[in-house]
Formats: sequence, C-alpha cells, structure tokens
Amino acid sequence: MTATLPAGVASARDLVGPAISSWVSRLSPDVRIVAAYHLGLVDADGRPAAASSGGKALRPAFALLSARAAGMPPERGVPAAAAVEFVHNFSLIHDDIMDGDTERRHQPTAWSIFGVGAAILAGDALLALAQDILLSEPAPQSAWAARCLSAAVQRLIAGQGSDLAFERRSDVTLAECLEMAGDKTAALMACACSIGAIHVGAPADLAMGLAEFGSHAGLAFQLTDDLLGIWGAPEVTGKPVGADLRARKKSLPVVAALTSGTGAGRELGALLAAEQPLSEDDVLRAASLVEAAAGREWAESEASAQLAAALKCLAETDMPDEVRAEFAGIAEFITARQS
Amino acid sequence: MTATLPAGVASARDLVGPAISSWVSRLSPDVRIVAAYHLGLVDADGRPAAASSGGKALRPAFALLSARAAGMPPERGVPAAAAVEFVHNFSLIHDDIMDGDTERRHQPTAWSIFGVGAAILAGDALLALAQDILLSEPAPQSAWAARCLSAAVQRLIAGQGSDLAFERRSDVTLAECLEMAGDKTAALMACACSIGAIHVGAPADLAMGLAEFGSHAGLAFQLTDDLLGIWGAPEVTGKPVGADLRARKKSLPVVAALTSGTGAGRELGALLAAEQPLSEDDVLRAASLVEAAAGREWAESEASAQLAAALKCLAETDMPDEVRAEFAGIAEFITARQS
Repeated sequence: MTATLPAGVASARDLVGPAISSWVSRLSPDVRIVAAYHLGLVDADGRPAAASSGGKALRPAFALLSARAAGMPPERGVPAAAAVEFVHNFSLIHDDIMDGDTERRHQPTAWSIFGVGAAILAGDALLALAQDILLSEPAPQSAWAARCLSAAVQRLIAGQGSDLAFERRSDVTLAECLEMAGDKTAALMACACSIGAIHVGAPADLAMGLAEFGSHAGLAFQLTDDLLGIWGAPEVTGKPVGADLRARKKSLPVVAALTSGTGAGRELGALLAAEQPLSEDDVLRAASLVEAAAGREWAESEASAQLAAALKCLAETDMPDEVRAEFAGIAEFITARQS
Repeated sequence: MTATLPAGVASARDLVGPAISSWVSRLSPDVRIVAAYHLGLVDADGRPAAASSGGKALRPAFALLSARAAGMPPERGVPAAAAVEFVHNFSLIHDDIMDGDTERRHQPTAWSIFGVGAAILAGDALLALAQDILLSEPAPQSAWAARCLSAAVQRLIAGQGSDLAFERRSDVTLAECLEMAGDKTAALMACACSIGAIHVGAPADLAMGLAEFGSHAGLAFQLTDDLLGIWGAPEVTGKPVGADLRARKKSLPVVAALTSGTGAGRELGALLAAEQPLSEDDVLRAASLVEAAAGREWAESEASAQLAAALKCLAETDMPDEVRAEFAGIAEFITARQS
C-alpha cells in the first residue's frame, strides 16, 4: 500500500478544475465569491488564490475513471465529476455551519468569513448547480445520472441528520454508526464511482459494480478519516491532535470502544459524558481508552476489510485493466493516507 | 377585482397535497419531521396537524393550470406543481434562518423549533427532492423542466443574496430593488406558470408566454406583499403592524420613498438610519413618510401596471379560454389580497 496521492487524482483536478471555475463564474456575484472561496479558487477578498486548497479531488478522479470504465475518454466524465464535487462541497459548506467548525483545509470556513446566511446560499447554489450540470449537455443517460445524484444527496442529508441526532444521544450502536457513515460518506463515493459511467450510457451491471466498489471504498475512507481524527499528525491533517475526541464526536472507533463491553469502554463513556470541557490530558486519556477497548484495532481491521471488499468488486466488474488498476490505486491510497 | 381565494387554488391544494405528503414521507426521519412541520402537515411533535397552515398554494395552482394550458388534464401537472412548491418551501426554510425570523404563518419557524442545523438539512432535502420529482416519471420534456427549475433556483438564490447585501447598504436604487424582486419572487412564479406545460411537452412559444405572464404576476405579488408588510392588518397577515419597517427592510415602497428626492424621503432615510430600535411611534411615522414620499402610490400603481402586463401576456398566448380565465383570476387575487 502507498500513501502517495495517485497521479490520476492530480490529473483529475487539472481536467475538472477549469469546468468547476467556469460553472462557478455563472453564479450571482454575492454567492459566487463565497463558493469560490470555499473551493479554494479565490481568497476572502475575491483575489485569485495563490495555491489551491480545494481538497483532494478524490471524487472527481473516481468520476473520470468511471467514464473510462464505460470505454469513454476521461473528458466525457467531466460534467459528472464536477457535479459530484459540487455536491461534496455543498455538504461541506452546510456541515461547517451546523457543526460550528471555524477551520477547514487550514483556512477559516466560509460561514466564519462571510456569515451564516451567505454560506447557506452558497451551499444551496452548488447543490442546484450540480443537478444542472448533468442535464446541461446531451448525454445518453443524463436523467438517470441526475437521479443517482439526487439519491446520493438524500442519503448525505440523512447521514448528517443522524450525525446531529447522535450528538444528543449516549446509546448509539455501532450498527447505527455504520449506517450513518454509509449515508454520509459512502453513498456519494458510490455515486462518484458510477455516475461518470451512467452519464455516458453504461449498462446497469457496470454501474452497479462500480457503485458497490465505491460504497466499500467510501466506508474504508470514513474509517480512515475517523482514525486520523484521533491519531492523525496535526501538522499533516491540519486539525489539532485528538480533535474528534475533544469535540466528543461519535466516530466509528469511539463507538466501537463505547460498545465493546470492556472496562476501558465504560471509563471512556464516563470521561466523554463529563459536563466540563476535556483537558489535554483527558483527550490523551480518551485516545488510549479507545485503543485499550480495541476501538482502534476494530476500525483498522474494518477499513482493511472494506478495502478488500472494494477490490473484490473491482475484480468482478468488467472494465479495461488500466482503469481497474487506477481505481484500486485510489482505494488503497484512501486507506493508507496520513491526512 | 376580488380578494377571495379563487376556487382553483383550493382545488390545487387538494390535488397536489397527497403528492407532497407522499414525497415528504420518503425523507429520512430526522429530516422528514422538520420538512413536514414547515409544510403544515404535522405539529412540532410529529402529530398530524389539525388544520393545514401550509401556505396559499398559489404556485401549485399556477403549475396545474400550466399543464392545462398545454391541453393536458391537471393531474399531469402534479409533479411540476409539487416540485415548484418544494423549491418555494426550501427557500422559505432557509430564508427564515438567514433573516432570524421566528414566526411564519402564525407558527414558530422550523429553525426556532428544531434548530438551525436540522432546518438547513430540511431545506436541502426539499431542494434535492424537487429536482428528483421532475425526473422521476417519464415526461416528454422532464430534463427541460428540471433545467427551468434550476434556473429559477439560481435566481432565487441571487435575489436572496442581494437582499442580504442590501441590509448593509444605504444607497440601494429602485432598479436594483426591482431586479432583486424579479430574482427572488418573479423567477419562481414564472417557472410555476410554465413548468407544468414544459413538463408535459408544450411548444416553446406557449412556455415563453406563460413564463412572461408569471414574471409580471410575480412582481405584482411582491409589490402587494411589500404593501401588506407596511399597511397590512396584523390579524390577517399574521405579522405585527409595520413589521417590514420595524425590521428596516428595503422593500419596494420604502426604496421608492427613499429615492424620491423628497423631504419626506430624506426624513425617512434619517429615521431608518438611526442606531437604536424603532419605537411604535417611529414605525407609524415611517409608514406615513413612505406615503408622503409617494412610495405607497408608486407601489400600488406599479402593481396595477404589472397586473395589466400579465393580463396582456395571457391575452396574447394561445390556450383554452377557461384556463386563461383561471390564470387571470389568480393574478387578480394576488394583487387584491389582504394577506
């Protein structure tokens, strides 16, 4: 396994970036600057950003590969890739408001610069734009692609809804938590991996195989994300050490530990249930309790299992070998990454 | 002119209501209750609402008429009507958050009951649902209908963005204010009046004629809304007297007065620019200054002019006479209504 960003991800950004800029430029001025800022295209004053901080472009890379899996050149996957990236960023902008997060990708979040109202609108605009992109040019199955995207959006919303509801509950089960991750993360990954193929007219069995791959890869991604949220190096992740624990987030390793039936799990529950803010020592103690209750081991092993399931789907789905290899490379990167 | 709700509006609610309930029931539970509450289907505890308070259903009525203008039975307009109503309510839910409004239709707003996060998600869900409805069943021009809806959504967002930006400015011109109303209100009315026809396969000239009618009717609606926001009877509108003035909203009659070049306009500007909250006396004084600066007269005359332009479009667009008469009846109601 490698932790180097696969070449296909960087080239996806090169291919999809101009389309993203072009679509964003059509938004009305008050909304455009907020969306462009969030996407890393401009700074808070609207000047072109020196270096793009617009995220890893994993989903666009998957979408371009998905068009190639259907035998088309990657260029044909650009509308689908841009649409998925807009949906992803719509959800980030709105989630940052809901979660009160003030920093993302080492930058202040959109709402913390432009205000909650402007950030709500920018998210809305990206969501509406995403659907429009898919319908804007003649493609064999643009309506099917748009419906797949809608379905992913509804699952994304359901997942975020559960996430918010979990904050107020102390009895969240691991099954509920996995379902939430399936909705909040895996559904859009599944969409990214299949929508490029669907848009250009792929048959249903290819679309289904790619979606199943994406769903497993998405869960592997979320498990890795949750592990990094506790044990990731702050200088790489851009988040303080133990950030998710400090926020008492019910992430997968935490819920695995809480529901482990172990003494460490019970101690973790008591620690996280305390009223007062967690000290640095509390956070370190919580991290070692998650580990002692085998939450870390479970999440690492589950991430590996999801990666293996993803690779199995790939092997069983008919597509050009080099496309399969690139899909596998990104899935492996997702699980091995450090940020 | 009449101020009685035309029969077509009540029957539109009967026809579209079940479709709306059915689509809302597909949302995930945490999001569903918020959307259903906002739509007046359930109370804050999720129990079926005694009497629906879900608004006037003007847009669904227009959408059903629009399918009939294309020679189809009203039932064929139901998906388009539901889609437009969902977009309208998506924007209301999000606008209430942005504007900090705690009451709508005599009820607490969704965010004030369920929290900002849940209300953002419910709005998002309705927006995504709206697009999905149009694509969910085979219709001759469902992709064109979906793109019209997207375009209306982008103008809605642009209009709300301008509205937020205007709050921080003291130099808003009447032209800017009219453009904002065109985006925020008239664009979705134009969409409502044409999307039913488009969805069932109407030719472009019918769609364009209906959209132009809707655009004028939408401006007449907004001008009337702004007049009611100052002089509407509180027991009918459900808003305190002079509500828009107290909130220092840059509504059309206010901006007409502020930009009138009269002494009353300048006095109004000074009154609204004051730092402290406006007293009851200040609000009454502001209302009489808007009137003295001819802001009320201008808005009433502009509303009549927009109604006349709407009726002219109707007369010039080919459709069954009884459909034209119903369109005209709703447009006249919009301009004569008391709430």
